[in-house]
Amino acid sequence: MDMNELARRARDASVRLAGAGSELKNAALGRIAAALKERQPEIIRANLADRQRSERDNLPAPLLKRLVFDEAKIADICDGIASLAGLDDPVGKTLLSTELDTGLELYKVTCPIGVIGVIFESRPDALVQISTLCLKSGNSVLLKGGSEARETNRVLTDIIATATAECAIPDGWISLLETRADVGAMLKEDKYIDLIIPRGSNEFVRYIMDNSRIPVLGHADGICHCYVADDADIAMACDIVADAKTQYVAACNAAETLLVHAAAAPAFLPALHKRLAGKVELIGCPRTAALIPVTAAADDWSTEYLDYKLAVKIVAGLDEAIDHINRHGSGHTDAIVTADKAKAARFMQYVDAANVFWNCSTRFSDGFRYGFGAEVGISTNKIHARGPVGLEGLVIYKYKLLGHGQIVGDYAARAKRFTHRPLGRDFPLDDK
Amino acid sequence: MDMNELARRARDASVRLAGAGSELKNAALGRIAAALKERQPEIIRANLADRQRSERDNLPAPLLKRLVFDEAKIADICDGIASLAGLDDPVGKTLLSTELDTGLELYKVTCPIGVIGVIFESRPDALVQISTLCLKSGNSVLLKGGSEARETNRVLTDIIATATAECAIPDGWISLLETRADVGAMLKEDKYIDLIIPRGSNEFVRYIMDNSRIPVLGHADGICHCYVADDADIAMACDIVADAKTQYVAACNAAETLLVHAAAAPAFLPALHKRLAGKVELIGCPRTAALIPVTAAADDWSTEYLDYKLAVKIVAGLDEAIDHINRHGSGHTDAIVTADKAKAARFMQYVDAANVFWNCSTRFSDGFRYGFGAEVGISTNKIHARGPVGLEGLVIYKYKLLGHGQIVGDYAARAKRFTHRPLGRDFPLDDK
Repeated sequence: MDMNELARRARDASVRLAGAGSELKNAALGRIAAALKERQPEIIRANLADRQRSERDNLPAPLLKRLVFDEAKIADICDGIASLAGLDDPVGKTLLSTELDTGLELYKVTCPIGVIGVIFESRPDALVQISTLCLKSGNSVLLKGGSEARETNRVLTDIIATATAECAIPDGWISLLETRADVGAMLKEDKYIDLIIPRGSNEFVRYIMDNSRIPVLGHADGICHCYVADDADIAMACDIVADAKTQYVAACNAAETLLVHAAAAPAFLPALHKRLAGKVELIGCPRTAALIPVTAAADDWSTEYLDYKLAVKIVAGLDEAIDHINRHGSGHTDAIVTADKAKAARFMQYVDAANVFWNCSTRFSDGFRYGFGAEVGISTNKIHARGPVGLEGLVIYKYKLLGHGQIVGDYAARAKRFTHRPLGRDFPLDDK
Repeated sequence: MDMNELARRARDASVRLAGAGSELKNAALGRIAAALKERQPEIIRANLADRQRSERDNLPAPLLKRLVFDEAKIADICDGIASLAGLDDPVGKTLLSTELDTGLELYKVTCPIGVIGVIFESRPDALVQISTLCLKSGNSVLLKGGSEARETNRVLTDIIATATAECAIPDGWISLLETRADVGAMLKEDKYIDLIIPRGSNEFVRYIMDNSRIPVLGHADGICHCYVADDADIAMACDIVADAKTQYVAACNAAETLLVHAAAAPAFLPALHKRLAGKVELIGCPRTAALIPVTAAADDWSTEYLDYKLAVKIVAGLDEAIDHINRHGSGHTDAIVTADKAKAARFMQYVDAANVFWNCSTRFSDGFRYGFGAEVGISTNKIHARGPVGLEGLVIYKYKLLGHGQIVGDYAARAKRFTHRPLGRDFPLDDK
């Protein structure tokens, strides 16, 4: 089947899937988890074939590791599905209800977005995670995984499609794409696909963003900052910067640049250097170099190291720090360490980022840590969804207006007047 | 100043404008209204020059009419500004508050989007309306109006920029672009511009959507439907269809296609024909032609007439109507006329449109009729904002996390556990 046909089928299925009730969707999630366990040997066999082929193809070790889909991963994934089933249905929530006039009632009700295109790299668990999020939120999904995981992805997609078909979820709601050409074709299907979610490296996400008219939910860079103010507690600042940098260097919310108030630098930087010595390479501005041993920094300040490296710059004060972050940051996560509430408030107001923190590590910006229960991804978009995105990022709303024959002519002629009275009630028709 | 420089200035101003309090923004709105009245003669003089030049250039009469900006228009616009000032500030609203752990509190707080690019055709009132909406929501704005209104637009922009500068609103928050080349350049400034709002004809909006990576808020087509079910009240159906078609034919929410259940057609269509005879040209399918005199329809069903023309098709039932609308509609506004609650529920559930109505005219889909007080426009987007968009379509949110030195390492090592307790309170720091 060609891409256009798959996308059209996904669109048709999405219309019907939008009407699926919570019980049906949760039953289908349960069936997926059961089927993953039942067909575990088949999954592991396919995954082994992928890993052996990838080893022969000299796939780098970190990618080989991400490719592993074993019994433990399957158990994790099934736990995740169970907790997803337990979350509130994001569809069918009444966001607003207004009486426009007697017997003319407006309801704003959440509904699925429609068709989501997902492109991810090696991890096969992303396939299960994102497709179950789409199912829970009533969206069709077109998936393109890494070719190194193709056998695993085929089995997983077949398991999910079969399990959901058994639960009367409309055929065509999930499809797997396999070739690079498919991705190019998918990015052109803006008539049928409403949103693209890319999961992978920066260059990969940027390529997607640059090559489609379809809106993209996600982030490319994660150039996160810590700013240590003149009044910061030195021990706290060391703890926070060490955690933000080293707790997991490959994460998008790991700190890449440290800004230090000139007055704090003489006490703080030597303490930090001692704390990170031998573990993190410090790359500093000339003023930093005068205080501690550092590699000289290029005048760039926009590098996402994703490594045990930290750029350090001394600034004159809060406003210079804010300007620096707004100029060089990626709008992901930035933190201030200060004892002064007013400085924290100013930082959080004027730093233009999805996540702005006071006296805690940048590593907290994450859907699970935020308590969302499920995470679609982290977005640096300025519209729709920003920061860690839960299920609510996969829904939109429609306006439903219930009348008794009202026409606009009567209001234009002032024969009738709008009341615009809040109703405070849920949409009253049973449409499941 | 070149486009890149204007866009960068708008971005810088937007960061500071994001911190402007409600009182300051409302005072600036008041100052704009006062200045529009003070400089009324200047506005009228500029507008006269535009109209005279446009008449010489043979601008069509409807466009000449839209170009008029007289005393009455100025009074209307000032009333609009006064009611905008009276609306709640959409910025700074706490949408969610969660204790992640003792002394680690997460707040999701609304903030401006940043820089909005607005492109509109002849009406100069759109310039004032959209720029005051941007001011109220804390966004910078780059405006490109029709060249036929250039003198009026220059004076209006100067009045707004001067009035807001007097109120300490940051310089550069508003700029007027003048050439077609500027538009092309603006559509490329995705680094600085966060959202484009085009206001004008379909082809114009579609051109914008096709030529920028910046997200676009709006709609191109408005192919709206009325479906008359077998059990519809004939008189009510005639009233609704007549209003939906004729109350204002040039509106995007005017009906373009009428779908009629085969069982309702023999009674309803002659009644409708009588009602609209001589006023509306009916364009019908062969089965319609067997019942009433119609122009034969091409098999297209996707024409937005914006005129006294209505396409009519007989369908076998509700599901065919829903399929037809989802295939040929534009996701704008679609209505069903039926006495049956279950049919209405099914229609509103499965028609994939921003506005789905039961027993009332499609013409109700409008921000003012919905009671939003101010309207950014009507969107057929599937993300961010859909349907009539009020001020809330011009804001997004950021996550603010208040800690006391917490680091992720402690939670990863299970030395600490998340509580994820709802706080139900507003963001506590005063950042104005």
